[in-house]
Amino acid sequence: MVNTMSMGDERNLTMVMDLYELTMSNGYFLEGHEDHMATFEVFFRKIPDNGGFAIFAGLEQVIDYIENMHFDEEDIEYFRSLGMFDERFLEFLSGYRFKGDILAFREGTIIYPNEPILVVNAPLIDAQLVETAILAQVNHQSLIATKARRIVKAADGRAVSDFGARRAHNMDSAVFGARAAFIGGAAGSATVLAGKMFDIPISGTMAHSWVMYHDSEYEAFRRYAGIYPDDTVLLIDTYDVLRSGTPNAIRTAKEVLEPMGKRLKGVRLDSGDLAYLTKEVRRMLDEAGLEDCRIIASNSLDEYSITSIIDQGACIDAFGVGERLITAKSDPVFGAVYKISAVEKDGVCEPKIKVSEAVEKITNPGRKSVFRVYDSSGHAVADLITHDWEHPESGKPYTCVDPKKPWIDITLTDCVFKPLLVKVISDGKRVEGPRDIREIREYVEMQLRDEIWQEEQRFENPHVHHMDMSPAYYESKMSLLREQSGKTHSGTQ
Amino acid sequence: MVNTMSMGDERNLTMVMDLYELTMSNGYFLEGHEDHMATFEVFFRKIPDNGGFAIFAGLEQVIDYIENMHFDEEDIEYFRSLGMFDERFLEFLSGYRFKGDILAFREGTIIYPNEPILVVNAPLIDAQLVETAILAQVNHQSLIATKARRIVKAADGRAVSDFGARRAHNMDSAVFGARAAFIGGAAGSATVLAGKMFDIPISGTMAHSWVMYHDSEYEAFRRYAGIYPDDTVLLIDTYDVLRSGTPNAIRTAKEVLEPMGKRLKGVRLDSGDLAYLTKEVRRMLDEAGLEDCRIIASNSLDEYSITSIIDQGACIDAFGVGERLITAKSDPVFGAVYKISAVEKDGVCEPKIKVSEAVEKITNPGRKSVFRVYDSSGHAVADLITHDWEHPESGKPYTCVDPKKPWIDITLTDCVFKPLLVKVISDGKRVEGPRDIREIREYVEMQLRDEIWQEEQRFENPHVHHMDMSPAYYESKMSLLREQSGKTHSGTQ
Repeated sequence: MVNTMSMGDERNLTMVMDLYELTMSNGYFLEGHEDHMATFEVFFRKIPDNGGFAIFAGLEQVIDYIENMHFDEEDIEYFRSLGMFDERFLEFLSGYRFKGDILAFREGTIIYPNEPILVVNAPLIDAQLVETAILAQVNHQSLIATKARRIVKAADGRAVSDFGARRAHNMDSAVFGARAAFIGGAAGSATVLAGKMFDIPISGTMAHSWVMYHDSEYEAFRRYAGIYPDDTVLLIDTYDVLRSGTPNAIRTAKEVLEPMGKRLKGVRLDSGDLAYLTKEVRRMLDEAGLEDCRIIASNSLDEYSITSIIDQGACIDAFGVGERLITAKSDPVFGAVYKISAVEKDGVCEPKIKVSEAVEKITNPGRKSVFRVYDSSGHAVADLITHDWEHPESGKPYTCVDPKKPWIDITLTDCVFKPLLVKVISDGKRVEGPRDIREIREYVEMQLRDEIWQEEQRFENPHVHHMDMSPAYYESKMSLLREQSGKTHSGTQ
Repeated sequence: MVNTMSMGDERNLTMVMDLYELTMSNGYFLEGHEDHMATFEVFFRKIPDNGGFAIFAGLEQVIDYIENMHFDEEDIEYFRSLGMFDERFLEFLSGYRFKGDILAFREGTIIYPNEPILVVNAPLIDAQLVETAILAQVNHQSLIATKARRIVKAADGRAVSDFGARRAHNMDSAVFGARAAFIGGAAGSATVLAGKMFDIPISGTMAHSWVMYHDSEYEAFRRYAGIYPDDTVLLIDTYDVLRSGTPNAIRTAKEVLEPMGKRLKGVRLDSGDLAYLTKEVRRMLDEAGLEDCRIIASNSLDEYSITSIIDQGACIDAFGVGERLITAKSDPVFGAVYKISAVEKDGVCEPKIKVSEAVEKITNPGRKSVFRVYDSSGHAVADLITHDWEHPESGKPYTCVDPKKPWIDITLTDCVFKPLLVKVISDGKRVEGPRDIREIREYVEMQLRDEIWQEEQRFENPHVHHMDMSPAYYESKMSLLREQSGKTHSGTQ
């Protein structure tokens, strides 16, 4: 497997890392700590667009990345040219392969802030070197999958396709963005490479240039229908939707397609007042007996504009969504972070906590498990963080703590506890074969249909999912916090 | 040269295209029009963040892409599997190489809305197939270069570095984003692969995990300074900036570095109230005789927050800028489009215009030139669009039209006209060798210092650059518009 890419240059994706990962690793190496085990966790703090949930995506690419990690001769040469690193460390890197374990939520899992969605248990240096690449993949794909879901929800049963490649933040933002959009519920993409790489449906008909190239709009339509009689979708907004585009589309249906025994599949609008125009177009098509001709709309759409034009009674059967999906325009950052939570010293696991001046930046220390808690109707009522050695028992009453309101005892009765973290990389190797993208997409669909409250899925003030802790875990976090803050306030000067 | 990339999969970047480019091309091929010449232009309509100018970036990658265009056996196989294309067309694609010419502004040129920044003169199919890849590169890199420039301006002489890889929209958004940020004036990046690929400065010291791994903050600092005595920058916000981080940094300077004859290079803050904290840290460092120790700040910064904390008197020597630069968070879409402007039929060039219902979406037809017009002080007072056969003469009075106020005759006196479009691809091959990235960056710098009015560079209500037309060009656009709109309003039903 080749880990290179080119825009006229090969690249080794292992090199997509922040320089500090190397300066620290060189330091750990020189301290002789390269074999000390550490635990790092990926979690995020805020759901984009003030939504009630996010979708975890990008795991398959993380696994590929980990399995293929290596440094080429010329990478080592580049490091040497920086004049910062010890030769023994460079030698260590030249034979480098990732040696740890990775646990993660299943790709497509609905995720919430402040729970570890991916955990790296690895020698210190291994754990350090993977930070940026893991975050870039998970942040990008989770962002787009989550955004796609919002748009799909707004479209309320109508198909949503990704048309965004030209506005994507470069090539693999287009390609992996199309993958993530499909996972989030998009019907497909216009991006050819995404179709080929991930076997997702692709679609595309004509641009304005096709219409403008030909001597008249009707001529352009007539030619196109002649070439693609089974799948004729005509772009009707090049000149004037109602006075030219729609009449010419109807004429094409009557004079070109119907004599061949074919029907006009659809018309597409890419500009103008979509609510008003699509109602008029629908009326004109219906009057011409083309009730089965679909209307496809595109033009700077997202969940907000789609909700609005549907409210206005727009007659649209499918949406093509471009820049606002592929860049997640209204909130283009998925802020997952990578934080150390434990180190092993002399065989003993030592939990680590970051005590920030900003309370929301204080981390959850130690090695832990995450359980999704289901009530008897099968709905996910909370997520629960415990020590990794705790095993809450399904069906039995269970008392836990809401860390935001620790003075209340919460008792969960008649609940099922499902562990969310599973091992995906063991000693540097993938545990299971790649998961089919349709299976991931269906898993998203199933959770949002059967498990996740509708109250968490609305756009306005969604219900905040409960993130509880086991009493033992909460107590140990508090005692570590007290200890740490005592250290800070005495020590030093 | 290999045009592949992998996250566990090879990719051919030629395949980053919208499906409609192939459906249309198949159509043109079947019509026997594959050799007809066409002209397509790249232009944009709106400057991000309501700024007064943008920076053109990504051209080198466009040239690489064009030179390497091809379809692999397995790409053809994929097309065949879609069941949409004629076998003769697939055969045509299997031997495909780009055959046209491309003209473009020099990379790094300051650009304005509605002027052609890149022009493709090529056989119809060639011109159609390159649309998405050209737009994705130009849109992404121009977006980030423009954003970087705004942040650099706000930093007012202080260095700005890109720290954003982890929040980038996937891998090459991080890498080409770092390139674009450097072109826009960033001092460098933390992204290792960008440093290696483009030979730009990279930087990076330690993460919170380094501090948390060690038994105490002082121990972490002491170790780091021992390993990197010549370039010690300490991260002081892991526990408490003023009560722990700063005192420990001072102690490291005194007890570790000074005995070695070294100075503490810098401290970095990544959280908290940067205005307040940096003033306090500066005072403490100065009192300890560390006046030369630099303060580096990072934490969700952009041009707005940097302007604000500098106004508040923050003592910061350099900024690390992450997610808000690499995603251009406040306005993450650069909306360049690709429109047909002329076709050649029977050896005659026929201008094409798109008459949209939205006036701002009406295109500029025909083959044209763009001149930047300089006054006697060397300032760029306007850009001028003409027919491609017009050559305004520098030094002579020149009368032109502002298409927004066509009733006024504008006379430019004592001006120099510099043509902006130069041929970069001739018959599918690059005309000149790659331009050095430092030369591109200095070109940006020079224009903004010497040529572009400061009034266009301010953030609030910047001066709108004049986009004028030659009288002949304006008249031919108007007559085409009248003709087209007559056609639409009579014809059809």
